[in-house]
Amino acid sequence: METFDAIRSRRNVRSYEERPIDAPEMTRILEAGRRTPSSRNEQRWEFVVVTEADRLERLSHVWRGAGHIARSAATIALIAPEADEERVRTSIAYDLGQVTMSIMVAAADLGIGTGHSSCHDQEVAREVLGFPDGYMCAWLIGMGYPSDRPLRPIEQPNRRPLDEVVHREVW
Amino acid sequence: METFDAIRSRRNVRSYEERPIDAPEMTRILEAGRRTPSSRNEQRWEFVVVTEADRLERLSHVWRGAGHIARSAATIALIAPEADEERVRTSIAYDLGQVTMSIMVAAADLGIGTGHSSCHDQEVAREVLGFPDGYMCAWLIGMGYPSDRPLRPIEQPNRRPLDEVVHREVW
Repeated sequence: METFDAIRSRRNVRSYEERPIDAPEMTRILEAGRRTPSSRNEQRWEFVVVTEADRLERLSHVWRGAGHIARSAATIALIAPEADEERVRTSIAYDLGQVTMSIMVAAADLGIGTGHSSCHDQEVAREVLGFPDGYMCAWLIGMGYPSDRPLRPIEQPNRRPLDEVVHREVW
Repeated sequence: METFDAIRSRRNVRSYEERPIDAPEMTRILEAGRRTPSSRNEQRWEFVVVTEADRLERLSHVWRGAGHIARSAATIALIAPEADEERVRTSIAYDLGQVTMSIMVAAADLGIGTGHSSCHDQEVAREVLGFPDGYMCAWLIGMGYPSDRPLRPIEQPNRRPLDEVVHREVW
């Protein structure tokens, strides 16, 4: 798909077909995530790909907004190192935002919908995902083919108008 | 360009041709940024597009790593509200990471290179960009056509290997 079409097709998708995501598609999506730039190229991230129904169901209890994870064809958990300094935590959050967008655009390009979830309950996340001490699960990205309608470029996105967001030369 | 080619072509570009970025290309890049998802769709961002040489030069003094901003064809400054709580600051950082990636992929699709810079000196940034109290300049994204070589899909990116980053079902 053309890049700008993929960018305009991405929307939050939280209802998925039962159809699995095939391995080559998932590899491409993960490859997009891996290539994301990061502060000093530190790549402070690990991706846990979950597809087992039982595991997805348990993972969906990390937060009240994570119900769609149980119904996803696959979920990518973004795991990052814990950090003492707020400056570092903020930098990691920014880099994980970049990873998230890489993953979501690469998925949209393949007709695969994505829906974020925060990950509040670290105990549940750790139990399901098995990440070691010193790490935390920052985000879950639920994925699957949309069960409502295919991804198509959205003409009128639910966003502030461009001329309100954009300032020229100076605010 | 195909989406996956744009994703694989993006690299940090800090040397630019003098050629300006035409208005339709810039509009498309900004449109990609505007469409980015955000926490509760709050869209806590403003984009200041700077193209004037004098303004870019002054802006390049916000940090020692911002020298390329002076030579950019255009720079998008990402401005965000200040926040009292770390939780909110982290959420804004994550959303700005998503915006950044949207902008960079949309630019790469057009053959336009991008290079981040942190924005350390808020006094300088405010003087040049004129944003009001209660806001801060979080990031600068320098842009322009690469002066070294055109953007092409990178076969071997300087990243950790996929099988090191990716875990299956469990860490």
